[in-house]
Amino acid sequence: MNVAFINPFISAIQDTLSTMATLEACPGRPSIKEGTAAKGDVTGIIGMAGPQLTGSLAVCFTEAVIIEISRRMLGETPQAIDETVTDMVGELTNIVTGGAKKLLAEDGYDFDMAIPSVVTGRDHTIEHKSSGPTLILPFETEAGPFFMEICFSEKVTS
Amino acid sequence: MNVAFINPFISAIQDTLSTMATLEACPGRPSIKEGTAAKGDVTGIIGMAGPQLTGSLAVCFTEAVIIEISRRMLGETPQAIDETVTDMVGELTNIVTGGAKKLLAEDGYDFDMAIPSVVTGRDHTIEHKSSGPTLILPFETEAGPFFMEICFSEKVTS
Repeated sequence: MNVAFINPFISAIQDTLSTMATLEACPGRPSIKEGTAAKGDVTGIIGMAGPQLTGSLAVCFTEAVIIEISRRMLGETPQAIDETVTDMVGELTNIVTGGAKKLLAEDGYDFDMAIPSVVTGRDHTIEHKSSGPTLILPFETEAGPFFMEICFSEKVTS
Repeated sequence: MNVAFINPFISAIQDTLSTMATLEACPGRPSIKEGTAAKGDVTGIIGMAGPQLTGSLAVCFTEAVIIEISRRMLGETPQAIDETVTDMVGELTNIVTGGAKKLLAEDGYDFDMAIPSVVTGRDHTIEHKSSGPTLILPFETEAGPFFMEICFSEKVTS
């Protein structure tokens, strides 16, 4: 995977959380996902598809972290992962991907975004089924840690 | 949502299971998803994006049903939802979407497919975050019931 694809997503989530939740997200070291997957309680997933590349992004939170982010974004504290929270995770996934799409378009990479899906369920895992690697991007915030998983494959054009 | 988008997915899953698992899938009555979501143990999700439409498909199984489908497709019975099973669910999601894409292209609807993701976790739920409705398509098989969820929105072109 081209590492140039990654930085726009890191910038986009940092900008989004900073603007919408007054929350600074400090990126940790990206790693290639191997073996057992990290687990989360709520995950936003969005597909990306275009003439040059195809991909999938997951933004994955534990319940404690997303509730604190919700409190900061919405001004009230949800008691559980309800529809308000999943709507916010879907919106966050959309905004981050839209932000990254804009930055990548400046580099000549174009894709369309699919409809985001939000998965809820204690300790679920996500696997991206591609021949290419999946990168895990961990973040630290005052609300706690969360991570993004990103998988891209460039199409071979003849 | 245009109902013409639905039948190609029904045909594609029927063809795929019939060919690869010698399993007849009998479609039930489609319904619009409202309120509480149906739950599953393993789900394949794929995004679709193109100039005219954007969408998301989820194919959702309980553990008992996917293990029986695995037995029929792979010739051996997995003891749990392991990587062999999730690979198969990802592949199934890809094949069904590819089949439907081909049928929809004949009707003049074109889209690119994103990378499929597979979610594992007992009793997880999926929500598609679109302004349009999500359709639930239930199926009955000898291996037990399963369902697909599909969400499409046509882009407004100026």
